[in-house]
Amino acid sequence: MTDHVLTLNAGSSSLKIGLFTAAAEPEVRATGAVERIGGAAALTLEDGAGATLGTRDLGEGGADHAGALDAALAMLREHFPEAGIAAVGHRVVHGGQDHDAPVRLDDAVLARLAELEPFAPLHQPHNLAGVRAARAAFPEAVQVACFDTAFHRHHPFVNDVFGLPRELYDRGVRRYGFHGLSYDYIAGELARAHPALHAGRVAVAHLGNGASICGMVQGRSVASTMGFTALDGLPMGTRVGQLDPGVVLHLIEQEGMSAAEVTGMLYKRSGLLGLSGISNDMRTLEASDDPRADEAIAYFTFRIRREIGAMAAAMEGLDGIVFTGGIGENSARVRREVCAPMSWLGVALDAAANEAGAARIDAGGDVGVLVIPTDEERVIARAAAAALG
Amino acid sequence: MTDHVLTLNAGSSSLKIGLFTAAAEPEVRATGAVERIGGAAALTLEDGAGATLGTRDLGEGGADHAGALDAALAMLREHFPEAGIAAVGHRVVHGGQDHDAPVRLDDAVLARLAELEPFAPLHQPHNLAGVRAARAAFPEAVQVACFDTAFHRHHPFVNDVFGLPRELYDRGVRRYGFHGLSYDYIAGELARAHPALHAGRVAVAHLGNGASICGMVQGRSVASTMGFTALDGLPMGTRVGQLDPGVVLHLIEQEGMSAAEVTGMLYKRSGLLGLSGISNDMRTLEASDDPRADEAIAYFTFRIRREIGAMAAAMEGLDGIVFTGGIGENSARVRREVCAPMSWLGVALDAAANEAGAARIDAGGDVGVLVIPTDEERVIARAAAAALG
Repeated sequence: MTDHVLTLNAGSSSLKIGLFTAAAEPEVRATGAVERIGGAAALTLEDGAGATLGTRDLGEGGADHAGALDAALAMLREHFPEAGIAAVGHRVVHGGQDHDAPVRLDDAVLARLAELEPFAPLHQPHNLAGVRAARAAFPEAVQVACFDTAFHRHHPFVNDVFGLPRELYDRGVRRYGFHGLSYDYIAGELARAHPALHAGRVAVAHLGNGASICGMVQGRSVASTMGFTALDGLPMGTRVGQLDPGVVLHLIEQEGMSAAEVTGMLYKRSGLLGLSGISNDMRTLEASDDPRADEAIAYFTFRIRREIGAMAAAMEGLDGIVFTGGIGENSARVRREVCAPMSWLGVALDAAANEAGAARIDAGGDVGVLVIPTDEERVIARAAAAALG
Repeated sequence: MTDHVLTLNAGSSSLKIGLFTAAAEPEVRATGAVERIGGAAALTLEDGAGATLGTRDLGEGGADHAGALDAALAMLREHFPEAGIAAVGHRVVHGGQDHDAPVRLDDAVLARLAELEPFAPLHQPHNLAGVRAARAAFPEAVQVACFDTAFHRHHPFVNDVFGLPRELYDRGVRRYGFHGLSYDYIAGELARAHPALHAGRVAVAHLGNGASICGMVQGRSVASTMGFTALDGLPMGTRVGQLDPGVVLHLIEQEGMSAAEVTGMLYKRSGLLGLSGISNDMRTLEASDDPRADEAIAYFTFRIRREIGAMAAAMEGLDGIVFTGGIGENSARVRREVCAPMSWLGVALDAAANEAGAARIDAGGDVGVLVIPTDEERVIARAAAAALG
């Protein structure tokens, strides 16, 4: 029976899959991940409760994206032989100017999405390779693209534009914002469990290895710290975040670096890793007694605070803050260092609730502070199931 | 008698001079400017009350910086034959990591400042050319450099660093901030006339053809919207302001522009000019009924508001806003569009006072709002006079 949907999230060196029931509110049956594609690739599969179903070493250099998908699907079929796939939902980083919702994929749509590859050269080609592999594997299934940009496509003009010559805006050089699947999930959770906050002005901080803040008014995005690329805004695990464009020009014109070398530095060797010289992993930095680790965390939390102030300006006030993503959900220290110096905005943290990782961690000030685990795969699964009508 | 000081401000195509008495609080005798150096250069000289003393056409392509200085000094001598020059104060855009105050110029200092030219290639060489010309013209006078960066040199680490690999910070790739002479003047005026605000947390918006905001706590800079170069932060007349660094890389790697072409675009064809397609001059834009003019102004005022919110986060609150610079002092519309949507911060504008361009334009809310005409030349003259002991 074709009563399941598959979710697919293909990154540069990783592939995540999810098996869900094809219901309006899908139930997760299994999640799988292939890490280190192109290197010592390895596959793990877990059931809906997080118990390991299987692991497989795919061998040094033994798997490309197509091979990774084949291996993951083979393990899925072994454990869920009865599960037919009616629809496949794909995470696609860039939907361009037009897509503000998921879209069914056909040849024409796929061709237009391929034209956006220059806008996200590190991600879009892998996303679309995953689409092509899934169309070959499930030729009868509905294929749906879910865009990281879609949630942000109704920003006011002043939050959509850079101070560049106008023809660049017309050609698509805009502030797209990313992490839209995560923000979509959070908006749904606010509507479901916190209707008063959902109706208000909320800064949602998605803090993972990638990190951004979304200004959300009545559940809709009005601003994002990420810009044209996923490089802008907050410093991240290895990405620089906000940077004077003059620094990029200085490194090329005065220091003689190539644009490719600067790209590599800004994406791979900056952020928490670059500042600390130790690690891109917040857990490692929190455990370190090196002062550079403390400085990297201080910079990270300061920039979050600074951008929450900017989001409050964009929303004309602040009713709530939501922490999500791996760091947002798990680091009591980051949440504390972000919130403690924000009493001027009406933020007051309940220290015990924060240390315990409670769902609500404010002490009853003007600004509600929540911790909500995100679930991007669920948003993709919902879109895939919805496409079945 | 050598009882006067000269101020010198040499830009890429302009030269400003000022003649002041050598007093602790110098009195202005004359100000002069040569515009369009290298083109149809022209000199004007005014007395301390703003009355024109003389004008001179220097001819198409007939003047370089040294020729411009010669012509300006000749006209000065003609009108003030008795005024001997005891000290010359120079505006120098970049003082590097170390200079947090004006410094007497000798060969060694000049050589170190020349090493900073790669940090400000569009300004520093012209500034230092002015120094060399003035040393030749006044070999007996004390020469003093006043840095745009000096006022910002005691920022907290989190406001001094980018999210780059640490070795770049160690090599001087930092957030220097600029417009420091203007902020120095404003800090002095706050101390003199508004001691309660001086003791508090003030966002000073220097809005001219260049534009930035300084977060000032107890009269000291804690943050600036400008970064490593004068390109960052607010959009300006022709400069882009804040920009996703990924856009720079996109223009080079995907669109095939050279770094020099991108530099030219971001400095000369962006900002208000680029967005409007009409003009870099706020007065022209305000007079236009083209919707793109309104959009450019809306973007300018939105980014100011957004950065005031960010500065409030950096200062942990906001007691005052100061508008200065040509636009800040003269555009009631810009001040209104910045302040009207900031009631969430306790900002309330007195509409009549704002339209009249009064010195104090708030309606008595939590945040004082002032208009203070800046006077960078006076700050230079004070430093030059002080160097005489």
